Amino acid sequence: SSPAGTIRATLFPGDGIGPEIAESVKQVFTAAEVPIEWEEHFVGTEVDPRTQSFLTWESLESVRRNGIGLKGPMATPIGKGHRSLNLTLRKELGLFANVRPCYSIPGYKTRYDDVNLVTIRENTEGEYSGLEHQVVRGVVESLKVITRQASLRVAEYAFHYAKTHGRERVSAIHKANIMRKTDGLFLKCCREVAEKFPEITYEEVIIDNCCMMLVKNPALFDVLVMPNLYGDIISDLCAGLIGGLGITPSINIGEGGLALAEAVHGSAPDIAGKSLANPTALLLSAVTMLQHLNLTDKADRIHNAVLKTIAEGKHRTADLGGKATTTDFTNAVCDNL
Amino acid sequence: SSPAGTIRATLFPGDGIGPEIAESVKQVFTAAEVPIEWEEHFVGTEVDPRTQSFLTWESLESVRRNGIGLKGPMATPIGKGHRSLNLTLRKELGLFANVRPCYSIPGYKTRYDDVNLVTIRENTEGEYSGLEHQVVRGVVESLKVITRQASLRVAEYAFHYAKTHGRERVSAIHKANIMRKTDGLFLKCCREVAEKFPEITYEEVIIDNCCMMLVKNPALFDVLVMPNLYGDIISDLCAGLIGGLGITPSINIGEGGLALAEAVHGSAPDIAGKSLANPTALLLSAVTMLQHLNLTDKADRIHNAVLKTIAEGKHRTADLGGKATTTDFTNAVCDNL
Ligand SMILES: CC(C)[C@H](C(=O)O)[C@@H](O)C(=O)O
Ligand SMILES: CC(C)[C@H](C(=O)O)[C@@H](O)C(=O)O
Repeated sequence: SSPAGTIRATLFPGDGIGPEIAESVKQVFTAAEVPIEWEEHFVGTEVDPRTQSFLTWESLESVRRNGIGLKGPMATPIGKGHRSLNLTLRKELGLFANVRPCYSIPGYKTRYDDVNLVTIRENTEGEYSGLEHQVVRGVVESLKVITRQASLRVAEYAFHYAKTHGRERVSAIHKANIMRKTDGLFLKCCREVAEKFPEITYEEVIIDNCCMMLVKNPALFDVLVMPNLYGDIISDLCAGLIGGLGITPSINIGEGGLALAEAVHGSAPDIAGKSLANPTALLLSAVTMLQHLNLTDKADRIHNAVLKTIAEGKHRTADLGGKATTTDFTNAVCDNL
Repeated sequence: SSPAGTIRATLFPGDGIGPEIAESVKQVFTAAEVPIEWEEHFVGTEVDPRTQSFLTWESLESVRRNGIGLKGPMATPIGKGHRSLNLTLRKELGLFANVRPCYSIPGYKTRYDDVNLVTIRENTEGEYSGLEHQVVRGVVESLKVITRQASLRVAEYAFHYAKTHGRERVSAIHKANIMRKTDGLFLKCCREVAEKFPEITYEEVIIDNCCMMLVKNPALFDVLVMPNLYGDIISDLCAGLIGGLGITPSINIGEGGLALAEAVHGSAPDIAGKSLANPTALLLSAVTMLQHLNLTDKADRIHNAVLKTIAEGKHRTADLGGKATTTDFTNAVCDNL
């Protein structure tokens, strides 16, 4: 049992560079005296029949029991007879929204220095139904499924997020001029929820126009909420604006406050074990986890220390043009706490 | 009948600023002595039952007969009982590919100065099937349809385009890791065609990653080919990189060499009739029309004159930060021919 006041959280270090960057998070959390006790789980070496994937039943149970977790990159083994690790986690844990705060990082120069938005992606349905068939040879069809329940749920989360994070506007992204019924239902649900949040401005933006506006002037956006595939596309586009997945935090939200924060970059097997990896995405994902737990002071301290370390420039990892090791960077973050 | 050596082309000036920018194209074509005789057609004032849209049967017949046309912006009237003008044109004329050369324009400053790519969008199927239904209340489905025939056709066009335009690489954009069968078929067709063009490098890029790469480093791309919705999204994203739809040319390709070049921006009713509109997108679309007709010298002359006029800066229209009227700009282009 945990010491009084301590929160148990599941940690999936993941594959490749995962263990190193997870080590970095553990070190920073200890230095910042975050009252979290980690329960570590690893991806299994064979398919667990209870999850139909390489994720063990016990590891999923751990997240369910703790209600909170942090995940490093996982490489889904190639082969048949099992499900993708990411899709299994979303499905089995009911992670209905993927949330990515996306902000320009001072000192990490890109073509944009004015990004400060949050993408909120419906994570369970839409184009990801898995329903595809070929009846006539050479004619293949796939089914996009939009439900009132899932649309209301993600819309409610988006407005609630906007309200509790001092955000002013929610933009629903869609293609309802073509997919009148499916995206139309998504918009209808967003409008219903918008009525309950009169203090938040609500707007609707067609996805093609949204992408054009994002690359021209991302400062036009605040919170974006969208169906699964548009969220997949736009959240990566936005990550690109600020430099890529290596510095972009992400958190997945389930029912009853359950949440799994996650670094969405790859496992980079080529540099694994060499202390070359940049732990920023996992550290900032851990920050979103602390925010989710309302450990706001700790979250702010770590967030500021990470950003200060990058801005100072002395301890940048190779991907940011520096020569620091993962350990150097982590030590610098601890010094900046 | 046309004078010897003259080509008849259909011209849809379109709505709003359409007539002014079409006037600009006519003036520049005359000055450049382009051997084209325009056959002008206007959007009707009521629904033509033969087209189920405000487009007249005669205007569609004109494009079919001439095999070539140029189209300004058209505003589809709101209301029921008729089809969108753009979708009617695509359908009735069998315009299976939308092609957009997208290059940084010297003097038109954006965050990017290194864009030089071409997006080729399948224009007839995919998510645009119009097949949507609700069986269970609150559960709406839409059908994405990918066919071997349409995928091969657009892939063949893309490789042929790459080869004849001195391009080196074709990237097929997809989400086949999720839509294994539909996007999988699209990729399979691209691979089959790629084998016939060994001199062109072929690669496959997942759409989310593609968007991230495009905003980070668009110079990584050359020719992109993709299903309908991805094309809709990515072609507007790319237009955003170089400044927007007001300067982006586009041409739609049908069977047997039929082509309809088109300015894809809106009809801007607020500034219509005031000689404030920038005719660049329609002029550069007219250039793609000339290239399609193999009138390469004329195409190059006009292309260079438009770019020179923008680069010089003296005769920029309001959207480019200048004070020139549409007429001033057009006169300057003619002077620069
Ligand atoms: C790997 C892939 C299935 C996944 C997705 O499409 O959701 C990824 O792109 C993501 O965004 O997490
Ligand atoms: C207006 C709309 C139907 C159209 C499309 O989605 O194809 C537009 O966005 C385009 O790209 O021409």
